[in-house]
Amino acid sequence: MSQVKIAVDCMGGDNAPGEIVKGCVNALKSDNDILVLVGREEAIKTELNKYKYDEKRIEVVCAEEVIENDEVPTSAIRRKKNSSMVVGLNLVKDGKADAFISAGNTGALLTGATVIVGRIKGVERPCLATLIPTEKGPSLLMDVGANTDCKPNYIAQFAKMGSVYYENILGVKNPKVGIVNIGIEEEKGNTVTKEAHQLLKETDLNFIGNAEARDLLTHAADVYVCDGFVGNIILKFGEGMAFTLFRLIKKALLSTLLGKIGAALSIKNLKGLMKEMDYSEVGGAPFLGLNSLVVKAHGASDAKAVVGAVNQCRTFIKNDIVNKIYEKM
Amino acid sequence: MSQVKIAVDCMGGDNAPGEIVKGCVNALKSDNDILVLVGREEAIKTELNKYKYDEKRIEVVCAEEVIENDEVPTSAIRRKKNSSMVVGLNLVKDGKADAFISAGNTGALLTGATVIVGRIKGVERPCLATLIPTEKGPSLLMDVGANTDCKPNYIAQFAKMGSVYYENILGVKNPKVGIVNIGIEEEKGNTVTKEAHQLLKETDLNFIGNAEARDLLTHAADVYVCDGFVGNIILKFGEGMAFTLFRLIKKALLSTLLGKIGAALSIKNLKGLMKEMDYSEVGGAPFLGLNSLVVKAHGASDAKAVVGAVNQCRTFIKNDIVNKIYEKM
Repeated sequence: MSQVKIAVDCMGGDNAPGEIVKGCVNALKSDNDILVLVGREEAIKTELNKYKYDEKRIEVVCAEEVIENDEVPTSAIRRKKNSSMVVGLNLVKDGKADAFISAGNTGALLTGATVIVGRIKGVERPCLATLIPTEKGPSLLMDVGANTDCKPNYIAQFAKMGSVYYENILGVKNPKVGIVNIGIEEEKGNTVTKEAHQLLKETDLNFIGNAEARDLLTHAADVYVCDGFVGNIILKFGEGMAFTLFRLIKKALLSTLLGKIGAALSIKNLKGLMKEMDYSEVGGAPFLGLNSLVVKAHGASDAKAVVGAVNQCRTFIKNDIVNKIYEKM
Repeated sequence: MSQVKIAVDCMGGDNAPGEIVKGCVNALKSDNDILVLVGREEAIKTELNKYKYDEKRIEVVCAEEVIENDEVPTSAIRRKKNSSMVVGLNLVKDGKADAFISAGNTGALLTGATVIVGRIKGVERPCLATLIPTEKGPSLLMDVGANTDCKPNYIAQFAKMGSVYYENILGVKNPKVGIVNIGIEEEKGNTVTKEAHQLLKETDLNFIGNAEARDLLTHAADVYVCDGFVGNIILKFGEGMAFTLFRLIKKALLSTLLGKIGAALSIKNLKGLMKEMDYSEVGGAPFLGLNSLVVKAHGASDAKAVVGAVNQCRTFIKNDIVNKIYEKM
């Protein structure tokens, strides 16, 4: 295998290009692969000049256009052939890079990835998978937003792809798969989950049945599958809730003198907890079911999140997940 | 208006009959209405004998059967005519009580309420509505589990009923209504939310458009509408997440000596916060769109939650919500 190349969209996300380029430079420290920085050459070089790094391991590929967050995905992908996103996806398609990471417009990335990189034969719908931190190690939640109207068979396929991913990335043989549902009984749920339940019973997966949403963070299953609308709601509601609770706790602690002293004494432990629950530590969301790896990084990604996403790509590529999904399907 | 009567299912829920009866006795203190306790006479009287209370304001109606949590709703309602749930619902239907509260089998209560109490004319699907605590006062989330496969028109109707409820219970004129969605842009969402969006634009409601799930706790809207599957997932995931986060925070604080001292100094503030975020303070979930009031209390309801639910019924009845929903539809 020739040297691994990971392409990164330097123009996508709230903190582009500064934090993205910084993350790429930091990511060089922990491997010997090549990072391909895609975007406006001048902007990227201005950022790169701030750091010392191994120049042989950074390549810059020029792409003068940028797809903005408010653009309609399909037309943006069609019109902006020279955008960092389209250029990056083509690098992957043409075998000039092994993976592509972007923190840009999610819809455009999903559309572009499906159209340009293409689906693995047999996969009906690729899906976004996210690791969610729990006390007993990460669980995988999917689909978290690629498909808003799922057929039961899509969900059964997500489960197969997620099992392959979880088994190879987390090293858990035959991971437990559950459907996110409103009750554990087989007859609970909406039409789609009830039919997906029956399909999953027929597979060779380690299917544990329905999992209640309240048990998502107690690691009832290793892999949770659901419709992309539901998964995205869970992810975003969880984000909002964690943010609100931490803020309220801080406010409660700081509202009196004793509380302030208490908070000061506890700050190290609370920071440790924040780190443990921090989604940016686990990288981005891989888009499973494509012919190559495409990773959606959070729109608010900072340098640390970029390092996380790059590390995730390395593990994904070394474990040859694309081929393993191909074999499973 | 004759004296208000509120019927309570004393056999439903994890803590029945003890906590339910205790809650009824405690609820007598704050009004002058009559509570009708429905269930096994002996069990209820044994509990009642533990307390001193105004005997003129407690009635006991005997119902020897109990619908268990694992029973199939439709057959349980059909077979167990003498269950506390069916007897209670009939009291409401026959005008012998103004409201019925149960912490028992949710599916059976919803089925029984629709079949026995009946829908308001024009309402396609009654729905469960829950107040969720936010920093800027409670928001109303609905449907939280009555309808797992919604048509766009159901969701538009939920919004109308929710507006009436919120306006009259919270005293907010023309409350802001939002659709729970995966993006604020009009074209975001699944087929059902996109069509519901168009229907809501045509109403006289104060429709603010889509609301992201991450903004549910920041009070982006007063009333949030969604499919019952999605609403139930949000409610249960939120419950699980709050539980996990509070436990992790406690663990983080107590893991070192300094943390322990800090926690001890902050305990009062943290308890205040817990109370503020406590769902049992806001009562149960009213089932909107029926000819009379039926309230689903949480399965884990304790005496405090029962008092909350009784108080909620009082406000509901005093504000004549059933008739106001009837007029709106």
